[in-house]
Amino acid sequence: MGGGQKDYPTLIEDAGGRNESVLILDQTRLPSEAVMLRLVSLEDAAHAIRVMQVRGAPLIGATAAYGVALGLADDAGDTRLNHVIDTLAATRPTAVNLHWALARMRRVLQESALAARRDAAWNEARAIATEDKAANAAIGQHGLSLLQARQQGSRPINVMTHCNAGRLATVDNGTAISPVYAAHAAGLPVHVWVSETRPRNQGLLTAWELREAGVPHTLIADNAAGLLMMQGKVDLVIVGADRIAANGDTANKVGTYLKALAAKAHGVPFYVAAPLSTIDFACSSGDRIPIEERAAEELGAGDTPVANPAFDVTPAALIDGIISERGIVRPGTLEQWNA
Amino acid sequence: MGGGQKDYPTLIEDAGGRNESVLILDQTRLPSEAVMLRLVSLEDAAHAIRVMQVRGAPLIGATAAYGVALGLADDAGDTRLNHVIDTLAATRPTAVNLHWALARMRRVLQESALAARRDAAWNEARAIATEDKAANAAIGQHGLSLLQARQQGSRPINVMTHCNAGRLATVDNGTAISPVYAAHAAGLPVHVWVSETRPRNQGLLTAWELREAGVPHTLIADNAAGLLMMQGKVDLVIVGADRIAANGDTANKVGTYLKALAAKAHGVPFYVAAPLSTIDFACSSGDRIPIEERAAEELGAGDTPVANPAFDVTPAALIDGIISERGIVRPGTLEQWNA
Repeated sequence: MGGGQKDYPTLIEDAGGRNESVLILDQTRLPSEAVMLRLVSLEDAAHAIRVMQVRGAPLIGATAAYGVALGLADDAGDTRLNHVIDTLAATRPTAVNLHWALARMRRVLQESALAARRDAAWNEARAIATEDKAANAAIGQHGLSLLQARQQGSRPINVMTHCNAGRLATVDNGTAISPVYAAHAAGLPVHVWVSETRPRNQGLLTAWELREAGVPHTLIADNAAGLLMMQGKVDLVIVGADRIAANGDTANKVGTYLKALAAKAHGVPFYVAAPLSTIDFACSSGDRIPIEERAAEELGAGDTPVANPAFDVTPAALIDGIISERGIVRPGTLEQWNA
Repeated sequence: MGGGQKDYPTLIEDAGGRNESVLILDQTRLPSEAVMLRLVSLEDAAHAIRVMQVRGAPLIGATAAYGVALGLADDAGDTRLNHVIDTLAATRPTAVNLHWALARMRRVLQESALAARRDAAWNEARAIATEDKAANAAIGQHGLSLLQARQQGSRPINVMTHCNAGRLATVDNGTAISPVYAAHAAGLPVHVWVSETRPRNQGLLTAWELREAGVPHTLIADNAAGLLMMQGKVDLVIVGADRIAANGDTANKVGTYLKALAAKAHGVPFYVAAPLSTIDFACSSGDRIPIEERAAEELGAGDTPVANPAFDVTPAALIDGIISERGIVRPGTLEQWNA
């Protein structure tokens, strides 16, 4: 993908760079229709994150940063700044990029003169967005080596993913899908197994963006992942992450753990791709990651009693490597990136 | 459940026992509406199996047996009998009860005088249905011991299942859910984790029948099964089967294998409950079981390319025991039931 102009960017500043509003692609209406939505206020940004008009850990982080900018008037004091940050922090609990972006905005804005805060906020949000694109492009290049190593003649390399960790989950380029785009751009034959990802069906977002990019793919029910690995139809698994603990345990969309167990059972390499902003070095292990419980309505089963955890935790022992903008490391050696 | 009258039986002969038609509960319309449908011909029965108006290996077997009866005129010769059996055999490939029931009907009818064939067919179908109820009731009593062994005070025993292997999958009583009904009837506190079972959502059938029976239950996305086991919220897993190979490898609804992997990872006992008619002693191992590929439309994703295998195979090594009407054995010792 790279930096080319897209018909439907996930998040861009409104035309003219007037520091007034941002446009997002409303992902709750995909894949049936692609509609851009204008955010003009803190409340718009918080709502967009909460109801998943934007989703994916990196995109949530960037949207929250812009949400801070949208929430600040020209001379916003610390009380307002705290309110803005607290409001955005309360939207979703699991993705750590949200808190990373808000902490970064707070640090910069606390050092900024009151009169310059608003512009500083827009500048910092813009920097976060720009860095996200670049980090994900670098992830693509690092991950490309994994696919190249598995190429055998003209046979497509079969990558399995889960949820959407493509460009729709980021400002651009994607995380787990970034190596796929890099392979596609490099002329490597690649095919993606896209799992539906109940209950929110983010697999349909992955199928939508892969189709837009011309990358061959096949949709499956989440339940089919184990059979496909047993049948030898998967060369490697790459997923994104919502929070990676310091020991490498990884919280990602619920169902990731089942794929990791199946990958281990069949010797299929299992990788997590995420920018450094997804690593929570303050969190020692996966059992300390809060798991968001979402509304029963997402399962659409009327008044049947429902449990709907949105994430699960894949233990580091099931992960062959973590791909970030810095390279690829074993999950047990993540600490080298803590600087 | 036992033999009590139900508002909505899955399969009964029409009133009067006139050997003319059978009524089935149309499971494609559950849970939104409970509608009985009359089958009067071979074609009706074959259609009902193919489009899953009836589903579940034991119920498919019984419906096929009645389908033979519906397909035979008073003096049906061998050509017609073969046509009837071949038509029903071609409806679905994985559940072996279908072939077991048809082989039994063929054996009995070939020994029957032409003039008596039609009545013999009805009698044998009736016997198969009656035996199915009894076998499943016995499965419930054997399985009950597993639940009793896990009871700790008033805490509910948490059983996880997959798909629907309750009374709706059988003529009555269910297979995997039969021990749950037996526990509920015995006053043991029990709670069932019901997974949605994409793409056909048979978990909603399980939720429907558990509600009818007053058994506490919670619906989850299939993806949540691993997290719940990691969190210690599952005491044992019981699933049904579509075909059990002689070595204990078990084909069941796709997604079963992922649950078995998670159960093994967390030391959660994993049991398969099925009548002897589900064991295919002629099939040496799971890799010889044909896996039905169903229509892409079941995933409801428009023209997105889809793979839709309906079953997967759980290796015997992941199965703690197989529960049949004869008792509970380790999967490696199934041969003792081959008589």
